[in-house]
Amino acid sequence: MLDQTLEHIDAHRPKFEGDLMALLRIPSVSADPAFKGDVRRAADWLRDHLVKLGLTVHLIETNGHPIVYAESPPVPGAPVALVYGHYDVQPPDPLDEWQTPPFEPDVRDGKVFARGATDDKGQMLTHVKSIEAWLATAGKLPLQVKLLIEGEEEVGSEHLGDFLKENVERLACDCVVVSDTSQFAPGVPAITYGLRGIAYFELKLIGPKQDLHSGVFGGGVANPANALAKMLGALVDADGRVTIPGFYDDVADLTERERQEFAALPFDEAAFKSQLGVEHLAGEKGFSTIERRWARPTLDINGLTSGYQGAGAKTVLPAKATAKLSCRLVPNQDPHKVAAGLKKRLEELLPPGIKMKLVEHHGAPGVVFPLDSPYLQAAAVAVEKGFGRRPVFIREGGSIPIVNTFASLLNADVLLLGWGQNDDNPHSPNEKFSLDDFHRGTRASAALWQELAAIKK
Amino acid sequence: MLDQTLEHIDAHRPKFEGDLMALLRIPSVSADPAFKGDVRRAADWLRDHLVKLGLTVHLIETNGHPIVYAESPPVPGAPVALVYGHYDVQPPDPLDEWQTPPFEPDVRDGKVFARGATDDKGQMLTHVKSIEAWLATAGKLPLQVKLLIEGEEEVGSEHLGDFLKENVERLACDCVVVSDTSQFAPGVPAITYGLRGIAYFELKLIGPKQDLHSGVFGGGVANPANALAKMLGALVDADGRVTIPGFYDDVADLTERERQEFAALPFDEAAFKSQLGVEHLAGEKGFSTIERRWARPTLDINGLTSGYQGAGAKTVLPAKATAKLSCRLVPNQDPHKVAAGLKKRLEELLPPGIKMKLVEHHGAPGVVFPLDSPYLQAAAVAVEKGFGRRPVFIREGGSIPIVNTFASLLNADVLLLGWGQNDDNPHSPNEKFSLDDFHRGTRASAALWQELAAIKK
Repeated sequence: MLDQTLEHIDAHRPKFEGDLMALLRIPSVSADPAFKGDVRRAADWLRDHLVKLGLTVHLIETNGHPIVYAESPPVPGAPVALVYGHYDVQPPDPLDEWQTPPFEPDVRDGKVFARGATDDKGQMLTHVKSIEAWLATAGKLPLQVKLLIEGEEEVGSEHLGDFLKENVERLACDCVVVSDTSQFAPGVPAITYGLRGIAYFELKLIGPKQDLHSGVFGGGVANPANALAKMLGALVDADGRVTIPGFYDDVADLTERERQEFAALPFDEAAFKSQLGVEHLAGEKGFSTIERRWARPTLDINGLTSGYQGAGAKTVLPAKATAKLSCRLVPNQDPHKVAAGLKKRLEELLPPGIKMKLVEHHGAPGVVFPLDSPYLQAAAVAVEKGFGRRPVFIREGGSIPIVNTFASLLNADVLLLGWGQNDDNPHSPNEKFSLDDFHRGTRASAALWQELAAIKK
Repeated sequence: MLDQTLEHIDAHRPKFEGDLMALLRIPSVSADPAFKGDVRRAADWLRDHLVKLGLTVHLIETNGHPIVYAESPPVPGAPVALVYGHYDVQPPDPLDEWQTPPFEPDVRDGKVFARGATDDKGQMLTHVKSIEAWLATAGKLPLQVKLLIEGEEEVGSEHLGDFLKENVERLACDCVVVSDTSQFAPGVPAITYGLRGIAYFELKLIGPKQDLHSGVFGGGVANPANALAKMLGALVDADGRVTIPGFYDDVADLTERERQEFAALPFDEAAFKSQLGVEHLAGEKGFSTIERRWARPTLDINGLTSGYQGAGAKTVLPAKATAKLSCRLVPNQDPHKVAAGLKKRLEELLPPGIKMKLVEHHGAPGVVFPLDSPYLQAAAVAVEKGFGRRPVFIREGGSIPIVNTFASLLNADVLLLGWGQNDDNPHSPNEKFSLDDFHRGTRASAALWQELAAIKK
C-alpha cells in the first residue's frame, strides 16, 4: 500500500509544488495588522484544501487569527497522531535584501525562495500532501490523523494555549508531529528528541537614590554597577560551571549512548567557529561543544544596563544597575527551584549598601523523549524511507514552549521531524526551502502514517 | 588700611548687591547658541565694570565666547595673585521647577535666587568688589592682582587652555585664587587644598560577530556580557581595594595631621546616608568616609551596556558588551601608569573567545597643595577675617582640570576659597547664594590681598 502512495507522491511533484506556491503567495504576516485579511485568506485556503481532501475541517475563531483544525476518521486499535504546524509567517523586512519579492515564490537551483517556504508552510504542507496521497491511493489513512494548524505562531501563539486546555479530549493523541526545525546538515536528516528549558530573570540593583558625581561620592558609597559585575561574575566559575546552589542536583546526565552518537555527528568545529567569528569556543569544562549546547545547563547574561551609555565620558556613579539573565535548563531541572537557588545565591553575594530586586520572567523545563520510544523508532524508519538515510538523533539548545505544553497536556511524545536546512533563513531575507526536501518530507510523512499505525496500542 | 577697606565693604553692601543683581539679570548661558548675544553682554558688562575701577582691561576674542582679562599695576617686592572665575552660567532648565524666574534675581530669607548666583557670578564678583573697595579707600592694591574671567567654563573651557599656553608670561603669578566651590558646612568656611585626579576608560568586549540565540548557542561560545561581569567584578576586591597591579605603589598616604583634621570635621554620617538614600556606606576598608572620598583612589563603573535592554525578555547571547569605568586618583598616581596597569590586568582576566578594546578617555593627576604653603596660611588668616572663624582645610573627591593646568603651567599654588554652600544648587533649579556669604567673601578677599602682600618674595 505504502509503495503506491509513495509512487503517487513522486508522480504528483509538480501539482504538490504548485499547491505550495499558491499558499506561499498569500502574505499571511500575523504580526502586522495590515495583513489581517491575508492571514485569514491563508486560513481559508487551508480549510478549503483540507475539505477537498475529504477531512472534517473546522475554522476556529480566536481573539486573534483563526486556527484550522481537521481530522480523518478514527481507526480503532491504531494510535492517533496530531500534526501541529502554522500557516502564518514572519514579516518579510528588510524588503530590499530579498533577491526576489518575498510573496512571489521563485525557484532557483531547486529551492523555492519565499517568506514561509520553510517556516512553516512548506514543512507543514508535507503532512497535508502525504494525507492527500494516502487518500488518493488507499482511500483512507491507516490511523487517525488530527491536524492543528495555527495562525499565530510567529506572534507567540497567544490564543493557542487556551484552545489546547479547552480541547484536551478532542485533541487526544499518542504522539504529536511537528515539522518546523532543520535536518542536522545537508543529506543528514535528524529527529530532535530533546530541548532545553529556560528560566529567565531580571536583576535590578539599587544604590543611592539618584545618580551621583563619581568624584564627589566615589569611594563613599556602594556602586550598584560594581556590585552587579561582582555578583554576576561570581555566578559562573572558571570551569564554566554555574554556582547557584543545587543547580546540578537534578540534571539528567547524558547517557553513554548519547555521548557516542553526538560524537559521531558530522560537526565541523572549525566551520562553526568561523560562522560565529570567534577564535575559541568556550563553556562548561568536560563536555563537547554539541553536548554543551544541547544537553548541559547554562547561565548567560542577556542584557546589561547601567549609568551612562552614550559617547564619550560621563563621571556618574549610577543609582541603579540592571541585568537580564537566563539559564538554559535540561531535564530534570525545575525552573522554580533554579529561581529559588539564584535568589539565595544573589542574596549571599549582595554587598551592604545595595538593595536588589529579582524578577522571574518565564520558565519552562527542558524535555527529552526516550530514544527507545516506539513512536521515535517508527519515525526513524519513516524518515529513512523518505530521505534514503537513517536519521541521526539530536537535541536542540533552544526551547519550544508548545512542545512542553503538548507533552504535559496531551501526555504524548512529540516527534520533531525537521525537513529544513540550517541555512534556510527562516526569519531573514531570502527564506528558502529545497523542493527535494519538500518531496522527501512528504514521502517520509506518508511512511510515518504506516509506521505509526503498526504500533500496537 | 584694611580696616577702612572692610568698613567700605560693610557700608556699600546695598550697592555691591545691586551690581550682583545687574550681572545676574544677564542670561549668559554659554551652552545655548540662542544666548550668544547675552553671553557677550555679560562680558561687556564685566569689562566696563573693571574699566570703571581703573584696571587695565582686555576683552579677548576666542573662537567661542570672549575672555575678560584685567590687571592692576605691578607692586615690586610683593607677590602676584591671579583670580580665575567665569561669567557664563549653566542652562536654567527645567524652567518650571524654579520658584522665581532664573534671570530675575529674587531675594528670599537673605539669599539671592538666580542662575549663576553661586556659580560663579556671585563668588567671582567678591574679588571684583574687594578690589573696588581697596581702590576706593587706599587708592591702590597692596599687590598686583590679575583677573582672568572666562565665558566657557560651563562648556568645558574649550578655548582657555590655548590662551593659557600662549600667555604664560602675561599670567605669571605666585598664586591663583578660585572661588567656585563651597564651604564645608554652614558657618564652617573651608579652604580646599587637594583634589583627586581621574583616569577614565571605555572597555569593549567582543564575542561572536553578531547577536546569537541564547538557546541555540548558549554554552557553546563565550558570552561577552558574562566576561565583562567577571572581569570587572575582579577589579575591586572584597576589601574595596583596586586589584590593578601597582595601583597603590605611588599613592601619597594621608598624614597623621590630615587624618586628625578630617576626623574633627563636623561630618554627620547619618545625615549623609539619608541624603543618599542608602542604609550603609561602603568603600575601601580601613578609611573613614571622608578619607575615602577625598584622599583614596577608587575604581567605579560609570556605565554598562550589552544585549537586550528593553522591557520583558529576549533570549539573546550578545555579540558585545561595553563598560565605562574610571579611577579617581590621588597624588602621586600617574593616570598613564594606571592605564597601563589596568590594561595588563584586563588582559590577564580576558577569557578565551573574547577580544577586548580598551579606550583611554581622559586623565588628570590628583593635586595637593602643601598645608604649610605661605599662600594657604595667608588665605586662612584672610578667610577668618571675612567669616569670623578659622577655615577648615579640606580636600575634594572630584577633579577640576583647570587647577592642574594652573598648577603645572604657572607653577603656582591654587587657593580654592569656596564661599558657597553645599545646597546652593549650582547646576539645578533654584540656584542661590547667601548675601551674607557674598559679603563675607568680599571681606575675606579684601583681607587676602593684604595677607598675600605681606609674604616676602
